[in-house]
Amino acid sequence: MHDVLAWKKVYASMANAVWDTGVPTFIAVREEIDAILADFVNTQEQAAPGTEVASLFTTVRRLLFSNGKRLRPLLCVAGWQAAGAPGGSRAVLRVAAALELFQTFALIHDDVMDDSDVRRGGPSAHRALAADYVKAGGLRSRAETHGRGAAVLLGDLLLVWSDKMLAGAGLGTRAQARVLPLVDSMRAELVYGQYLDLLSTGRIPQDVGAVLRVARYKTGKYTVERPLHLGIALADGGLQLQQDCSAFAIPLGEAFQLRDDLLGVFGNPVQTGKPVGDDIREGKATVLLALAAQSASKVERRLLDALVGKPDLDCEDIGRVRTILESTGARQQVEAMITSRRDAAFAALERADLPPHVTETLQQIVWMATERYA
Amino acid sequence: MHDVLAWKKVYASMANAVWDTGVPTFIAVREEIDAILADFVNTQEQAAPGTEVASLFTTVRRLLFSNGKRLRPLLCVAGWQAAGAPGGSRAVLRVAAALELFQTFALIHDDVMDDSDVRRGGPSAHRALAADYVKAGGLRSRAETHGRGAAVLLGDLLLVWSDKMLAGAGLGTRAQARVLPLVDSMRAELVYGQYLDLLSTGRIPQDVGAVLRVARYKTGKYTVERPLHLGIALADGGLQLQQDCSAFAIPLGEAFQLRDDLLGVFGNPVQTGKPVGDDIREGKATVLLALAAQSASKVERRLLDALVGKPDLDCEDIGRVRTILESTGARQQVEAMITSRRDAAFAALERADLPPHVTETLQQIVWMATERYA
Repeated sequence: MHDVLAWKKVYASMANAVWDTGVPTFIAVREEIDAILADFVNTQEQAAPGTEVASLFTTVRRLLFSNGKRLRPLLCVAGWQAAGAPGGSRAVLRVAAALELFQTFALIHDDVMDDSDVRRGGPSAHRALAADYVKAGGLRSRAETHGRGAAVLLGDLLLVWSDKMLAGAGLGTRAQARVLPLVDSMRAELVYGQYLDLLSTGRIPQDVGAVLRVARYKTGKYTVERPLHLGIALADGGLQLQQDCSAFAIPLGEAFQLRDDLLGVFGNPVQTGKPVGDDIREGKATVLLALAAQSASKVERRLLDALVGKPDLDCEDIGRVRTILESTGARQQVEAMITSRRDAAFAALERADLPPHVTETLQQIVWMATERYA
Repeated sequence: MHDVLAWKKVYASMANAVWDTGVPTFIAVREEIDAILADFVNTQEQAAPGTEVASLFTTVRRLLFSNGKRLRPLLCVAGWQAAGAPGGSRAVLRVAAALELFQTFALIHDDVMDDSDVRRGGPSAHRALAADYVKAGGLRSRAETHGRGAAVLLGDLLLVWSDKMLAGAGLGTRAQARVLPLVDSMRAELVYGQYLDLLSTGRIPQDVGAVLRVARYKTGKYTVERPLHLGIALADGGLQLQQDCSAFAIPLGEAFQLRDDLLGVFGNPVQTGKPVGDDIREGKATVLLALAAQSASKVERRLLDALVGKPDLDCEDIGRVRTILESTGARQQVEAMITSRRDAAFAALERADLPPHVTETLQQIVWMATERYA
């Protein structure tokens, strides 16, 4: 399973994979999550003040149903099954769907903070809402301010919705007592992680360890570890299982972020749905950049200092930075870091001794998270 | 009670007022809420990733403990007592404190959206966070972007905290089932109200009814009606009591917003803690402006069109607009609207036939909300 060829076979067959015990396939989970989300958004729209807020709903639907990976819901269901619970109950699917609403909240606010134009192959929420505003006769001079404000509100709404979805999951008092503290931790971790990220943006980072710590907060926990923990907690799995899954989740979360960093610079924008080089323009503190700076010659370092964090870099400038990221060996080092973390995740998985169909699912998720193109 | 002189006596004695049945005074409720909030923020700080996030905590403490009116917590406790529940239980005080966290979330994001410099006599959250960032050696060129992003995150954190405070209030399953749907409605109403407000900003409004509708969503419900309903629901008060309180809350909520509008233009900035005229610079769609536009001469109208919604108006420009708001009679009309709504609230209170100490509390709150200077 650990080499790419074998993975490609697994990945190709995944579309039709049925887990041993007849538990839902990836696709089935995705479809169920989609149906729950569609139904939920429709219900919210009926309770909304009317057609004046239509743009909020158009925007949120586009973001929610644009072929996302649904990685967090899948991990939540996997955690639930790791604890020996069968199939996908209504409760676990709704908790999983709440994670997707939470993720959409995070994306919307993240794009506002980074002033990103594009998300999932379309305009980011604030750009879409600004365009709708102008189309509806709004003042062009206010469009940017309007879009930003409206996207802050839309993110708030998604955060409120994710909470509402959770409250409506029909958890009993005891399940709530197990699940809610985890949700609280996850939400606070994301905010702190994003804030630490913001503090470190605009400067070439020195310390790989410090960058990885921020990544753990801003991505790893809410992308991998907390979804697994939530599923386990729902099924009343024990502390040992939580720890086993953390041993798997922490390296995988880091690998996920490292892949994200590479895709942001070397990815195909048609596949990622995001323009190339935005991280460089913003001056995001990535491991990739830290490693490049460590090995850069004086000339390369001067060029990095001159280019990184400048919002108006053109294609050629981005190309120059890419060249340095290659010539310093940083790109290869990050690839190696992904591989070693992937291996660590696989090893943790073997040690964890989960039911075979769960192990297989999580192996597939490791490949999805680390060898993706989007 | 209905004339201002009598009110002044009540208001002056309020500091020492003890309610008939020995239930907490206004001051006692405030103190208990303050203590709960201080304790809660300390606990969150201990769980936070360390000193790197110190600015978030400094900022939030300044906003939370800067002598706010605590109007929403007071109303929540009043609703609880209106339903016949005694004193202030731990549960109701924590729900009331959650309302204050929610309000602080709303203020922080509102200031980001309006790009306001000042809040409660100090810098708004995004300005404070930008200043801290520069003080800590952050890049001056990134300060504004940083401050805005950090304030979006801080608002998110406060929203998450308000939810956490609520989850820790120790409500039983039944109380939760009564309370949570109201909280959900309140949160969605605020977001929609703010969005409708944003859509109507930048233009002189035509229709007083439409402006009042937005005010109901963005202010009235979460400031007056929902806090009362929450207190009632906690104490398991009936539907009739909820309706009686709505009949009181809806006019009071409108009067509260109308007073806010007047204070924004004619208030004393030392008392309001906000600069004069920001609403005019932003082009907020207020009833005040709608009425002025309706009665303006051609010359006045041209002047309004030229000045309202221009971010760089100076003191003299604001003075010109104020003159028109007076000469058209708009200011007096809004004062009359406040008075008639205040009377409607008093009349609804008499009809509601609540326990005498609750009636007295709510009467005092009416004065606080409509005759305030801040």
